[in-house]
Amino acid sequence: MSYFPDIVRDLKEKTKKYDTVGVGKHYARALQYNVPGGKKYRGISTVHAYELIAPKTALTEANIKLAVYLGWCIEMLQAMFLIVDDVMDGSITRRGQPCWYKLEDIQLSAINDGLMIEAGIYQILKEHFSHLDCYVKLYELFHEMTFITTLGQFLDTKSTHQDVLSFSMEQYKSIVANKTSYYSFYLPIAAAMHLAGYTDPEAYRQAKTILLEMGYFFQIQDDFLDCFGDPEVTGKIGTDIQDSKCTWLAVVCLQRATPAQKEIMRECYGKNDPEAIARVKQLYEELSLPNTYAIYEEDSYNMIRTHIQQTSRGIPVEVFLKIMDKLYRRES
Amino acid sequence: MSYFPDIVRDLKEKTKKYDTVGVGKHYARALQYNVPGGKKYRGISTVHAYELIAPKTALTEANIKLAVYLGWCIEMLQAMFLIVDDVMDGSITRRGQPCWYKLEDIQLSAINDGLMIEAGIYQILKEHFSHLDCYVKLYELFHEMTFITTLGQFLDTKSTHQDVLSFSMEQYKSIVANKTSYYSFYLPIAAAMHLAGYTDPEAYRQAKTILLEMGYFFQIQDDFLDCFGDPEVTGKIGTDIQDSKCTWLAVVCLQRATPAQKEIMRECYGKNDPEAIARVKQLYEELSLPNTYAIYEEDSYNMIRTHIQQTSRGIPVEVFLKIMDKLYRRES
Repeated sequence: MSYFPDIVRDLKEKTKKYDTVGVGKHYARALQYNVPGGKKYRGISTVHAYELIAPKTALTEANIKLAVYLGWCIEMLQAMFLIVDDVMDGSITRRGQPCWYKLEDIQLSAINDGLMIEAGIYQILKEHFSHLDCYVKLYELFHEMTFITTLGQFLDTKSTHQDVLSFSMEQYKSIVANKTSYYSFYLPIAAAMHLAGYTDPEAYRQAKTILLEMGYFFQIQDDFLDCFGDPEVTGKIGTDIQDSKCTWLAVVCLQRATPAQKEIMRECYGKNDPEAIARVKQLYEELSLPNTYAIYEEDSYNMIRTHIQQTSRGIPVEVFLKIMDKLYRRES
Repeated sequence: MSYFPDIVRDLKEKTKKYDTVGVGKHYARALQYNVPGGKKYRGISTVHAYELIAPKTALTEANIKLAVYLGWCIEMLQAMFLIVDDVMDGSITRRGQPCWYKLEDIQLSAINDGLMIEAGIYQILKEHFSHLDCYVKLYELFHEMTFITTLGQFLDTKSTHQDVLSFSMEQYKSIVANKTSYYSFYLPIAAAMHLAGYTDPEAYRQAKTILLEMGYFFQIQDDFLDCFGDPEVTGKIGTDIQDSKCTWLAVVCLQRATPAQKEIMRECYGKNDPEAIARVKQLYEELSLPNTYAIYEEDSYNMIRTHIQQTSRGIPVEVFLKIMDKLYRRES
C-alpha cells in the first residue's frame, strides 16, 4: 500500500495539465474506491516475483518501487474490468461494499471512470518506465492482456445466453483462460520478468503454461466459493446460478446428471428466483459436488506442484510455489 | 474504405490465437457496425495530412497504407467513445441507425465491445508500426488522447448535474478541448506528423494551438446542429436540452437572458418533456441565437484562417485550411 498514495498523486497531477478543474478530486476518489480494496493477489505477486527473480544487486529501493508501481498498474487494470463487469452483470456488491456504479452520484458514468483508470496505467508506465529497455515490452504486454481479457469477457457473456445443457468443459476452459488466467496470473509474473530483464522467449512460454494452469485452478475455486462460500468471508454475494454462468459446477453437474436432473437444470438455471437457485444448489449437493471439489482441489494442487518442479528453464520455481500456497484452500 | 476489410480480417485473425471460438465473427460485426458508418473526418484527415506533409519520395503505396491504418485506428478510438457515451447518455440512434447497445442481442455487453475495439488499436499498431521509429510516439499519443478524452467526458457528465444557471464560457471551453478537440483534431494530424517523421516539438505545439481552435469551432457547430439541425441530415436526434448539457447555446443564452428568461432556463432545461424542450428552443430563438451563430461561424472561420496563415513553423498550412473548408457551413 505504501506507494498507492504516490500513484494517486501522480495521476491527480496529470489532470492539472489539461485545465480540468475538479477532475483530480474525482479521479482520486475513483482510484481509492476501486483499486486497493481487494486481496491484491496480482499486485503482490508482481512484487514478490520481482524480488525472487531479479539479480540481488538489482534489488535497490528504486527498483522495488518500480515493481510496486507495476503491481498497482495491474490492480488498476483489474479495477477497470471489475467496474465494467459489475455494470454489465448488474452486480450489487463488490469487495464488501456497493459496486461503484451503484453509488447515487456515479451510476453509468462508472464506465468512463473505468476508462480513466485504464488510461492512468499508461500515464504511470510513461512517467516511470519510459527510460527502461523493457518499456515497449511492458506496454505491449498490458495491451495483449487487455485484448485477451475482452475476448474472454465476450465468451463469458455469450455463454450466459446459451442453452445451459450445451455447456462443455472445453468451452469452460477457453472462457477461464481468456477471461481470467492471462491477466490475473500470467500478467503479474511476465511484467516482473520484463522488469528483471528476462528476454528468453522460452522462459515466458514455460511461465505461461504453468500460470494458465494456476488460473484454471483459481477460477474453479472462485466458482465453488460463489455458490458455497461464506459471503461474510468472500465479500460478495454469488449470482452465478441466476446469471446462467458457465461455471465448473454447472459443467461437472451436467456431466453427471441423469436426464431428470438435466431437466432441473434446464428449468431452474438462470432464473432469478430464490427457489430455483436453491433447487440448483440442492442438485449440486445431491451430486456431491462439494466433495468432488475437495478432491479436485487436492489433486490439482499436487499436479500443478509437480509441473512446477519440472520446469527446466526460466525463473526460480519458488515464484510459482509461493502463489500456489496462497491459493490452496483459500476461502475468499 | 479500401483497407477497412483488411483491418477487420487482421483483428479476426488475432482472436484465433487464443482459442476463442466464435469471437472473431462477433468482433467483425462490432467493427463493421460501429467503426465505418460516420463521416470519417478523423480518419480521412489523417491520410490527407500525411499526403500533404510527407516528403514526396515517401509517398509509396506502403506508406499511404500505413496512414490509412492510422486513420482507422483513430476511427476505432472514436467508435469506442461513441459506444460507451451512448450507453451512458441513454441515446437511441447514432449515425442514422440504432445505437449498438440498443440492439436486442447486444445491450450492456456493448461496453466490452467498446473495450475490444479499443484494444484492437494497439494490436494494429503493434503489427504494422512496431518496426518504425515513430512506434512509441504513436503509442503514447493514442494513450495521451484517450486519457484526456476520459477527463473531458467526466467534465461533460458532471456539468449535466449542476445548476444550469452556473454554466460559464470558461467551463464550456474546458469541456470542449478535453472531450472533443484533442482526439478529433489534434490526434489525426499529430499521428500523421509522427508517421511523416516530424520531431520538432515546436511544430507539434503550433499544430495543437490551431487544431484546438478548430475543435472549438466544430463543437459549437455540433451544439447548434443538435438543436437546430435537420435529423434527416445529421443522422441523430438531438438530446442536449433534455440531457442538461453545457452547450454553447445554453451558455450564450444565459449571458443574454433577463432574470425572467433565466427562470425559464432553470425551469425547463434538463427536463425530458417536449413542452419544456420547445420552450428552451423558443427562448434561443427569442434571443436570436441562430443569427448569433451564423455571425459567429463567419467570424470564427475568418479568424482561424488568419491564425493558420500566421503559423511560422511546422507543417504546410494547406493541412489546416483543408480541414477548415470541410467544417465551414457544414450541416451534418
